[in-house]
Amino acid sequence: MKDINIYFDNAATTRTDDRVLKAMLPFLSTEFGNASGKYSLGYKSRKAVENAREKVADLIGAEPDEIFFTSGGTESNNTVLTGGGWREICTTGIEHPSILNTLKRTENTECKVRVIQCNKTGVVDISETEKLLKAIGGTGKLLSVMLINNELGVAEPIEKLAETAHVNGFCFHTDAVQAVGHSKIDVRCGIDFLSASAHKFYGPKGIGFLYIKRGMKLNPLVIGGGQERGIRSGTENVPGIVGMGVACEIAKAEMEENGKKEKEVVGVLRERLLSIPDSFIIGDGERILNIAFKGINGTSLALRLDVEGVCVSTGSACSSGLEKRSHVLDFLGIEPEYADASIRISVGKYNTMEEAVTVSEKISRLVAELRELTSA
Amino acid sequence: MKDINIYFDNAATTRTDDRVLKAMLPFLSTEFGNASGKYSLGYKSRKAVENAREKVADLIGAEPDEIFFTSGGTESNNTVLTGGGWREICTTGIEHPSILNTLKRTENTECKVRVIQCNKTGVVDISETEKLLKAIGGTGKLLSVMLINNELGVAEPIEKLAETAHVNGFCFHTDAVQAVGHSKIDVRCGIDFLSASAHKFYGPKGIGFLYIKRGMKLNPLVIGGGQERGIRSGTENVPGIVGMGVACEIAKAEMEENGKKEKEVVGVLRERLLSIPDSFIIGDGERILNIAFKGINGTSLALRLDVEGVCVSTGSACSSGLEKRSHVLDFLGIEPEYADASIRISVGKYNTMEEAVTVSEKISRLVAELRELTSA
Repeated sequence: MKDINIYFDNAATTRTDDRVLKAMLPFLSTEFGNASGKYSLGYKSRKAVENAREKVADLIGAEPDEIFFTSGGTESNNTVLTGGGWREICTTGIEHPSILNTLKRTENTECKVRVIQCNKTGVVDISETEKLLKAIGGTGKLLSVMLINNELGVAEPIEKLAETAHVNGFCFHTDAVQAVGHSKIDVRCGIDFLSASAHKFYGPKGIGFLYIKRGMKLNPLVIGGGQERGIRSGTENVPGIVGMGVACEIAKAEMEENGKKEKEVVGVLRERLLSIPDSFIIGDGERILNIAFKGINGTSLALRLDVEGVCVSTGSACSSGLEKRSHVLDFLGIEPEYADASIRISVGKYNTMEEAVTVSEKISRLVAELRELTSA
Repeated sequence: MKDINIYFDNAATTRTDDRVLKAMLPFLSTEFGNASGKYSLGYKSRKAVENAREKVADLIGAEPDEIFFTSGGTESNNTVLTGGGWREICTTGIEHPSILNTLKRTENTECKVRVIQCNKTGVVDISETEKLLKAIGGTGKLLSVMLINNELGVAEPIEKLAETAHVNGFCFHTDAVQAVGHSKIDVRCGIDFLSASAHKFYGPKGIGFLYIKRGMKLNPLVIGGGQERGIRSGTENVPGIVGMGVACEIAKAEMEENGKKEKEVVGVLRERLLSIPDSFIIGDGERILNIAFKGINGTSLALRLDVEGVCVSTGSACSSGLEKRSHVLDFLGIEPEYADASIRISVGKYNTMEEAVTVSEKISRLVAELRELTSA
């Protein structure tokens, strides 16, 4: 198999930062103590866990006691949706499957689920949200809207949404898996619950966190020995937690610089790819570009790119590799001829301008080749 | 802080085997692809995940498609108990909190929970089990009994229990967290569901698995993108999975040798510690010794040992460090004067005979000192 030369699928997962790995290594070797053990080796792990909790909290403007470690974004999302005893949940149709598929099951219980519309670019309709939330009485109400969409890259107006939620007696949750570590977040803007996953910002896979605003109560999804103050049981994943802590620290220090560079890289990609005839932007974010080339098949294009050492995604990589049309593009009403012709390019801190130029040229050539094949 | 010299808390967690760490490293660095990604980098991760699945299956006599990766034993246990639509669950009072605390919540639903008695050493009462199971009609019935108890080290007669379960229309689950990688297990003896955690057998923390017998159905606990064939969503923890696979491979190859040595080490500890006046064995297993010294406080003894560089546990380390009397010892009716005076010594493959001798001498001296203090 050839080497991977250019990785443009950073919304699916990111390469673990070498500094993160370095910080994890002792905890994968000599510092193996159980963080709940009542001896020095355990205290060392406990101290490392609490140190990481501070770093995570610091990144999003929270207090350490508002941070709960989980196995990732999916588990965090599940915990919020199922643990609040909600009687009403409002959300959008472009959320991650860990929200929408969980709600499909919730719907069979006493919880009512309502879906809010978005415009063509994926931005949630604020006035519809206001109207909808206002009309729902009672208690036990949650509004859950993601911060940055994983397929489109679009950022939702979460401050405004949080405000609307609170005015109408709703709690507000945001799935911030694509935003944490990349965009500036301050949970004090009105977020009650926030989900995140370390591997989306150069941390390890298998670890994430849930922010729960002080005073808010959730029942645990994973029950057992009472770790994480009863919110998430199971022996603490110390190396993962330590890695995520360092990833947060690095993210905070380098966010501005990385963001600036990534924006430039996306800019080059956008400009060059839009110069391809019959190209059409479906999703346009600071790190994600979802773009369609009429007449070709997105999967074919991604496979061709793979042969040339370039990794991009078709649809959402979170959907476990199953071939089906993206529910996000469906919900937005993107015509199948565009949805099926789209690829998602997602940029990370290791990408360069040169890579953007190279990949644009490759795509330009491959689109032409694929179109020729189709018309032949 | 002083160095840790002797670690005798292997039932709480184990040191990751260096060979396990070595296998994980590429996946914490260059091989970072999302296992669901449709390009070469993703395929490499996918291949590594499936390779690990084969190794896990091989260790317990299962087929690869019967293995589902989770974040650990707690999550595996939760998934079985909550995912089967059970109407009747029978279990013992000495199960891990990830069983008993989950059932406390289940009890409020339409599921009825019944607890089976054990004898003083923690062995489940087979004839009571038979009688109980026989008396329960209907469908949706589960018997869940752990394989090796984490506080006592005692092994339950799971083959007989599985048989009794099936004769009476029950499914059989075993929490094998303390057994997998240490004891020979063949799921074909009648196990329908089995839970395990990698860090208990020299694998990394934050990863475990659930064996689900072909044909058995469970609803997922963690819902989302549909990974692990819908049983456990969330981006695959590739480094963790790879590490657990190698831990299984090593365990299979070295189980006999390690087991023999551990038994000898436990033998030395048992003999020497029982020679301390007024000592009393509460739990006696091949790797775990739970022993009380009348008149002293187990926590004080463990702390004194820690000062001398020895790690042992008081009660179960899974109980998130909270000070309270063990529910296991309570259930067995161990008198408080013994329960509070007990420590748990759990042996692993890195322990030596010399360590057993040294620790026995230390305990002997410290028990005498503590008794003198108390009587003074």
